[in-house]
Amino acid sequence: MDNLKIILKTGFALLLFMLVGNHLQAQGVSSDTLAALADGQKYDRAIHIMAMLLLGFGFLMVFVRKYGRSALTATFLLVSIAIPVYIFLAGTGAFGNKGSEIDTLILSEFAAASLLITAGAVLGRLKMPQYLLLGLLFVPAYMFNEWITLDNGLGLINAGSFIDTGGSIIIHSFGALFGLGVALSMTTKKESATEIESDFTGDRFSLLGSMVLWIFWPSFCAALVLPSEVVHTAINVVLALSGATLITYFFTTLLRGKIEAADIANASLAGGVAIGSVCNSASYSEAIIIGVVAGALSVTGFALVQSRLQKGLKIIDTCGVSNLHGIPGLFGGLAALVVIKGIDAGAQLSGIGITIVISVIAGWIVGKIISVTGRRRIPYIDSEEFTVDD
Amino acid sequence: MDNLKIILKTGFALLLFMLVGNHLQAQGVSSDTLAALADGQKYDRAIHIMAMLLLGFGFLMVFVRKYGRSALTATFLLVSIAIPVYIFLAGTGAFGNKGSEIDTLILSEFAAASLLITAGAVLGRLKMPQYLLLGLLFVPAYMFNEWITLDNGLGLINAGSFIDTGGSIIIHSFGALFGLGVALSMTTKKESATEIESDFTGDRFSLLGSMVLWIFWPSFCAALVLPSEVVHTAINVVLALSGATLITYFFTTLLRGKIEAADIANASLAGGVAIGSVCNSASYSEAIIIGVVAGALSVTGFALVQSRLQKGLKIIDTCGVSNLHGIPGLFGGLAALVVIKGIDAGAQLSGIGITIVISVIAGWIVGKIISVTGRRRIPYIDSEEFTVDD
Amino acid sequence: MDNLKIILKTGFALLLFMLVGNHLQAQGVSSDTLAALADGQKYDRAIHIMAMLLLGFGFLMVFVRKYGRSALTATFLLVSIAIPVYIFLAGTGAFGNKGSEIDTLILSEFAAASLLITAGAVLGRLKMPQYLLLGLLFVPAYMFNEWITLDNGLGLINAGSFIDTGGSIIIHSFGALFGLGVALSMTTKKESATEIESDFTGDRFSLLGSMVLWIFWPSFCAALVLPSEVVHTAINVVLALSGATLITYFFTTLLRGKIEAADIANASLAGGVAIGSVCNSASYSEAIIIGVVAGALSVTGFALVQSRLQKGLKIIDTCGVSNLHGIPGLFGGLAALVVIKGIDAGAQLSGIGITIVISVIAGWIVGKIISVTGRRRIPYIDSEEFTVDD
Repeated sequence: MDNLKIILKTGFALLLFMLVGNHLQAQGVSSDTLAALADGQKYDRAIHIMAMLLLGFGFLMVFVRKYGRSALTATFLLVSIAIPVYIFLAGTGAFGNKGSEIDTLILSEFAAASLLITAGAVLGRLKMPQYLLLGLLFVPAYMFNEWITLDNGLGLINAGSFIDTGGSIIIHSFGALFGLGVALSMTTKKESATEIESDFTGDRFSLLGSMVLWIFWPSFCAALVLPSEVVHTAINVVLALSGATLITYFFTTLLRGKIEAADIANASLAGGVAIGSVCNSASYSEAIIIGVVAGALSVTGFALVQSRLQKGLKIIDTCGVSNLHGIPGLFGGLAALVVIKGIDAGAQLSGIGITIVISVIAGWIVGKIISVTGRRRIPYIDSEEFTVDD
Repeated sequence: MDNLKIILKTGFALLLFMLVGNHLQAQGVSSDTLAALADGQKYDRAIHIMAMLLLGFGFLMVFVRKYGRSALTATFLLVSIAIPVYIFLAGTGAFGNKGSEIDTLILSEFAAASLLITAGAVLGRLKMPQYLLLGLLFVPAYMFNEWITLDNGLGLINAGSFIDTGGSIIIHSFGALFGLGVALSMTTKKESATEIESDFTGDRFSLLGSMVLWIFWPSFCAALVLPSEVVHTAINVVLALSGATLITYFFTTLLRGKIEAADIANASLAGGVAIGSVCNSASYSEAIIIGVVAGALSVTGFALVQSRLQKGLKIIDTCGVSNLHGIPGLFGGLAALVVIKGIDAGAQLSGIGITIVISVIAGWIVGKIISVTGRRRIPYIDSEEFTVDD
Repeated sequence: MDNLKIILKTGFALLLFMLVGNHLQAQGVSSDTLAALADGQKYDRAIHIMAMLLLGFGFLMVFVRKYGRSALTATFLLVSIAIPVYIFLAGTGAFGNKGSEIDTLILSEFAAASLLITAGAVLGRLKMPQYLLLGLLFVPAYMFNEWITLDNGLGLINAGSFIDTGGSIIIHSFGALFGLGVALSMTTKKESATEIESDFTGDRFSLLGSMVLWIFWPSFCAALVLPSEVVHTAINVVLALSGATLITYFFTTLLRGKIEAADIANASLAGGVAIGSVCNSASYSEAIIIGVVAGALSVTGFALVQSRLQKGLKIIDTCGVSNLHGIPGLFGGLAALVVIKGIDAGAQLSGIGITIVISVIAGWIVGKIISVTGRRRIPYIDSEEFTVDD
């Protein structure tokens, strides 16, 4: 009798369980589908990031005179090399486990973003095949740093103790410092004195690129956070970008007398760079403050250190990535020490320090390797590699 | 024995409940996650709206001659001031409860859209700091009207009885009328006779801005509707936009002899403006009809009232926001009286009337305040505030 | 007593069922909402496709000299005619059942994409009202082919046995071949010898259009796949596009000596065209190989068959849609024979063959019909239909 009851109850339980399951499936939504829906939202953010990579970074770099086709084509090539190489290397497991398919795609886009930042530092000084070589060599170095700082690679930093959700350090600072490393090893003093002219008719295109980056930046920072953190992260990013945009306007007017459109296009984004590390944990007011400080740092760098007003760029960082990604990224990584209660300060500083060391050294070595394939004193222009009739 | 059974059954129920819950959680999807996923879809629409604000409104305004940098920078600044101010004021509760974090973000974007419409009416007549002042003063007025018409502010209109899902009235008409209020109080007859030249080489950029608005308009209207209404709302918006686009082509040819690209860029969007109020309740055929009528009204306004063909704009509404947002918005709000069965006509008319009164008066006052900080007879051009070398 | 137990157990089951239901609903998420969320993700992809239609196809076609306004306006009109006509015809049920509202919207966007491809073949040879007539006549022919190849129309091919998930055949090849049919029937030898000049200053706009297509192509191919297949499909598309982009760079340099920006803008996308048929079933490496082959085929077509370098286009396919959509599409459809295990080869070849026959014949007839409304030997330019002052 008791056995019968147990059997009945078990049968009943299974029936009920199937009933609930069927109810959900009747709507075309099984629990497998639920997991797929969660991945589907990551997918949407992955597409947003793709817009940043191509339209955003691509058009932001169109300001260089007679180099528009080259900048856009280089962007296409760098994205097309970085993503497959990252996915292939992730598949080998050489740099730890990168998670599900969608996580791997997003991480590969992060690598492409960091590579595009590096390219911005040497824009106009490489030929197309050299950009490709740069991409091939950059990705393993990037993954090595990612593995050490986030995934306990070599056992140096405990997984989860270095905080850099939106990549202030491992994406932005890494890319900028790697780029400076490349530039340093490839460029003699004479070369660095050669001006790269900027093309002010490209301003509208640069502002277009900047706007695309601004718009989709929340998806960049929220790409891999928990579903419950997406909205708060997004609002923090919007507030940081707003703060940086407003302060950029005030500082560009203050420091230059007039507004420089390139400052607006670039320094406004420093808020997005700097909020990265703490994007999912900061409060609204902390987010705004981080954005304002980052914007101020960035525009000051552009206005005082790098003057496009004086008939061209006289330094080796073509797009000023040190001002947009380098300094604001480091500031963002350090801000985590203040914002996040109970943070492991040692791990945070280690992560930052290791990233600086790896990026500069790897960049310097890669610059030397690329130099073997040819160097140029005068910056390239479209007509050397492209068919042009204008 | 009976007690034992009850205990057993209760235990069994709990077990089963946990089993089902675990089954869902095993997939990484708890019911909390489900709520987060619902918010995540609103998030996607919030990003789409951000694209409309910056790329859409920004580039649609690039047609003004030698004012491209200014138009894009003003767009950046207005968005950066409106969203944080709205979120801050929402946090104070002064204008009622704005709902969850994501709802507040979307509502703040609506405010920014309305502000950009206002700015379109006075584009070229303000300096950058004046745009910022405009934003600061606009947002509280906008929230006051939103509170009264939607959230039973001052007890005037019962919550839910004024129908304006996609903001035909409270976003589009409010912005246009506020802008006219500002223009009226800031502009003398002499000033309004001063032409603002349009730059036809900017047409491709204007069409780009227009396309961005067209593409993402469904997300604007569906931003806050129920998940089950999103798709129908989106299709209604697409049909309304299609109807407006087709009629704009016929009317621009009919009224002007040739096609005016600016008509295509602007009046095609009137369908999106007008479908707003009833976007989630109209049938497909109603949506097309509303779009066609709105497009016809808008293009007639542009072609007959505001003639860019005659070597410049001779009226005070720089971007013709009265033709694109003002009239089509009012038409959309009134269309609800026909489309929605059992609508509270008194509430609907009250909402429209109150919005008209508040927007014009508040705009007029804000115009007077801005005038204190300086006025100009001749429209500004880029070179007065920006570094230019073209 | 037993009856009592049954009643108790039934009541308990209902209670438990409601309990679980309530638990989900307490979070604001019923199972109906879950279905709505699944549709909501399709909605996001529908918006991405809309970006491809307007910004993507529109700006990719801006390269034609003095025809930028016309190309963008034609894009607006073609989308605005195709989507409502498709939705209306789907509602009649004349071409089978097109599924839910969101599925119908996405299918109507596919039709619009195919129509834009057709228009690319005759760009500059039609007046605006002729583009509209083309759209009206194209959509029923497109739906007829869709019905026969996918929905067992006329009982020719079993539903589900012709594999073309992302539309390599029924969208891309159909559109390209339909366009060639129109061009063949409308154009005499003399006319086809008339050059259409390309405008290299439009290159940056063309690259913008190309990037928009590249970015959102994953959503095009994954639009209607199962939720669990979205991510894998997307990655396959990205890999195919990357492969095509890289090979395009090598081949354009090889075949032309210098890089042709138009090759980069166009042939890079051939990977997306060709991966369509097997986008949800290919492995990563298969996806890359398909992309590389498709890119190579496409760039070879552009470089050897269609030479924009020689001061203009001397053939009738204005935008080279045969090189971008025709050949790569057919290759993609045939690739399914190799990639998909156990494919019904007869059905696959039938689907391809039927599509070729219907598209060419229908295009030829439509061309004759349009010819009745007027023909031109010299390509149109903006100033004939548009107000211009540049």
